[in-house]
Amino acid sequence: MKFLNEISGVFPAAISFAAGRPTERVFDKLRPDVLVQMLRTYESHASSGGCRLAETRSRLLQYGRTAGIITELVSRQLYLDEGVPASSDRMLITAGCQEAIALCLSALCSDPRDVALVCNPTYVGVTGAANASRVAVSALPSTRNDIAESIDEAVCELQLAGRRARALYLIPDFDNPTGRVLDERQRRSILVACGRHRIVILEDNAYGLFRYEGQPVRPLAALDDIGCVIYLSTFSKTLCPALRVGAATLPNSLFGDRAASRALWEDLVNRKSFLTVNTSQIAQAMVAGVLLEQNGTLLDWIQPALARYRENRDLMLTHLQSVFSPLSNEVRWNRPSGGFFLTVDLPFKFDAESVNECASQDSVIVAPMSFFAFDNSQDHRIRLAFSAVGSEQIRTGISSLGRYVVRRLARRPRFGDGRRNASDQMSQSLSATDL
Amino acid sequence: MKFLNEISGVFPAAISFAAGRPTERVFDKLRPDVLVQMLRTYESHASSGGCRLAETRSRLLQYGRTAGIITELVSRQLYLDEGVPASSDRMLITAGCQEAIALCLSALCSDPRDVALVCNPTYVGVTGAANASRVAVSALPSTRNDIAESIDEAVCELQLAGRRARALYLIPDFDNPTGRVLDERQRRSILVACGRHRIVILEDNAYGLFRYEGQPVRPLAALDDIGCVIYLSTFSKTLCPALRVGAATLPNSLFGDRAASRALWEDLVNRKSFLTVNTSQIAQAMVAGVLLEQNGTLLDWIQPALARYRENRDLMLTHLQSVFSPLSNEVRWNRPSGGFFLTVDLPFKFDAESVNECASQDSVIVAPMSFFAFDNSQDHRIRLAFSAVGSEQIRTGISSLGRYVVRRLARRPRFGDGRRNASDQMSQSLSATDL
Repeated sequence: MKFLNEISGVFPAAISFAAGRPTERVFDKLRPDVLVQMLRTYESHASSGGCRLAETRSRLLQYGRTAGIITELVSRQLYLDEGVPASSDRMLITAGCQEAIALCLSALCSDPRDVALVCNPTYVGVTGAANASRVAVSALPSTRNDIAESIDEAVCELQLAGRRARALYLIPDFDNPTGRVLDERQRRSILVACGRHRIVILEDNAYGLFRYEGQPVRPLAALDDIGCVIYLSTFSKTLCPALRVGAATLPNSLFGDRAASRALWEDLVNRKSFLTVNTSQIAQAMVAGVLLEQNGTLLDWIQPALARYRENRDLMLTHLQSVFSPLSNEVRWNRPSGGFFLTVDLPFKFDAESVNECASQDSVIVAPMSFFAFDNSQDHRIRLAFSAVGSEQIRTGISSLGRYVVRRLARRPRFGDGRRNASDQMSQSLSATDL
Repeated sequence: MKFLNEISGVFPAAISFAAGRPTERVFDKLRPDVLVQMLRTYESHASSGGCRLAETRSRLLQYGRTAGIITELVSRQLYLDEGVPASSDRMLITAGCQEAIALCLSALCSDPRDVALVCNPTYVGVTGAANASRVAVSALPSTRNDIAESIDEAVCELQLAGRRARALYLIPDFDNPTGRVLDERQRRSILVACGRHRIVILEDNAYGLFRYEGQPVRPLAALDDIGCVIYLSTFSKTLCPALRVGAATLPNSLFGDRAASRALWEDLVNRKSFLTVNTSQIAQAMVAGVLLEQNGTLLDWIQPALARYRENRDLMLTHLQSVFSPLSNEVRWNRPSGGFFLTVDLPFKFDAESVNECASQDSVIVAPMSFFAFDNSQDHRIRLAFSAVGSEQIRTGISSLGRYVVRRLARRPRFGDGRRNASDQMSQSLSATDL
């Protein structure tokens, strides 16, 4: 995580496709004068119930409710924008989604026998949080498409080893790092499997609102009639990361048990009080201000960013096509229907050393998929984030990546003319399109 | 922690001496228009190095450096105001001091044999954080005054049990909950003991700047020539809690080893990236704005609050004297020379049930010292926070506490006339001073 967030500082001149950051193009909507307007909007909203403005302000700047002061507004937004039936009294406002992940993992897997299931590959933040909290993680096999079946198998294997699967971390929409979307049938079968094994699903939906085409699939939390989904959300992508505001929303009943859900919520609140006391109320009030001014929904607010991301994805696909068409047998990529990332399969291993070489010599930074993996299945694959770059950077960066790939291919032993020709041809096409 | 922060919500009409909150009297210095001014001050400072304002703003709202973006300003403030020689490259800006405590405990005590030493009684936040991170805690005996000797003993006992003391959490100035200040001789002997046993001291100095009389004693971190002190600081008391900005500052070398200090810093940064990614950069920029406008020091900024706290302490002492003088043999209290708390010894047990009774019947909320203790040594003692209340609340609250004490005393079996007389006399004096 630190590597991905900070490597651009090591190579400041390089174009970075590494970190999944929101576009800064829309940050002018959060200029200091706008932020203060958001604070004022929240203050007058909070004062409307008969509380004096001075009191509201004092309360805002003071220590406050551990679970957060904007749960009603956030639960309304989750319902309006994502169809998630979120009760404000089962919600916990967190210092970004990352804190929610860390809290849930340690609360759900508090016994040394407990294990959290994850996909392979998966978001590095979940494995990192588990390691930091000494929570054991077990990765579902990357070779199987059917997650529900993988869960059944994993549970059996863990049981034989005296372990219990207690949680499953999942990004059903525009997965980080793969970009994959689970269809409704897959989601329903995952819910059934988790209900059967009493596994709580941590549904991380950071990217769900950023869909570029096709129909949205309902979140697991909206389909959940078993009571097994904790919905993790964040304002880092919709508003900005610097607020550090996210939320965890529990089901009203946990596997049919209302008291169990309440007890888990209280455990999470208690753990939060010992981790960060509460989430910055100034930041919470700013989020609330935006929600109030936007009538509770962020769908309009994110439109400019959404348009930009769609444009960027299309541009990146176009440039990948134009740069790598001579190597179409060896270099392949996916076409994500949303989110911030696409993945590229390469005909060679791409590791941390490759990142440095590519960044220092070709001035482009990409993320090796092996960083997100538990085995060698992702060694030949990279993740490209297209969210925070401009069109010129996409053009130049993909050309630079092409140069790097050609150089890597030139190093490997040649077995036939076909390959050399393709590589030579690409080398030529690069000098034509790039400087 | 949650109990202390939230009980005032359960008894909204009661006067609360429970939570150690800063006075809201000075919060008008952080009105929304002032906050935005702070943001602008930071932006123009950060843009002065040749960076365009738009770039600074984009960078501010984006994901950023895990260790924080204001370490230079904060290290300067720690040096100017507290005499702590803090290197900005050994500092980590955290989501309040609480996150710093949680991070340090789990990094230092990562092996199941590791133990963190604490005083008895101690701040509930450290035991809570340890429990949440599955870090074992061992309390130094409350009966001994010499902490250095207690450390030696504890280390021996732990060694016999196959455990290792790795950290010592300590509040040398105006301890929460006892109000105790360690003199320089005590501090030096604690440093020597910890150096001998390679125990890292977590020096929490939330209250050090709030001294009402007498000469300041230098922080452990300023006296530390062994390299064993991590200095924990917070802006929750000097500015406001809602910012959630604190810091952990490591020594330049850890027990003489520079690489070890660097490695520990990197471990902490890595752990933070998996807990909260980074501390809200908007909140960091607001803190930086205040520091820039105050020429790097907060000594002027805190003057109005300091004056208020001194006044409140004096008022509380006066009222305690006037209410409890008839019971001077049985009810005793300390006179803290700084900080937010004083403690009162009572002639009966004061537990959670007592809190509720006192709050519901006498409309005053106090904190039982047993909440902070590991044994029954504190069962007859309460902690009164005088920081966030007004003079009228202090008068009324102490009178109410007097009424509660009289009622409790009336319940116990009477052995002699002397006692009854004192209690009756006090009962009378209460009805004279209150209502």
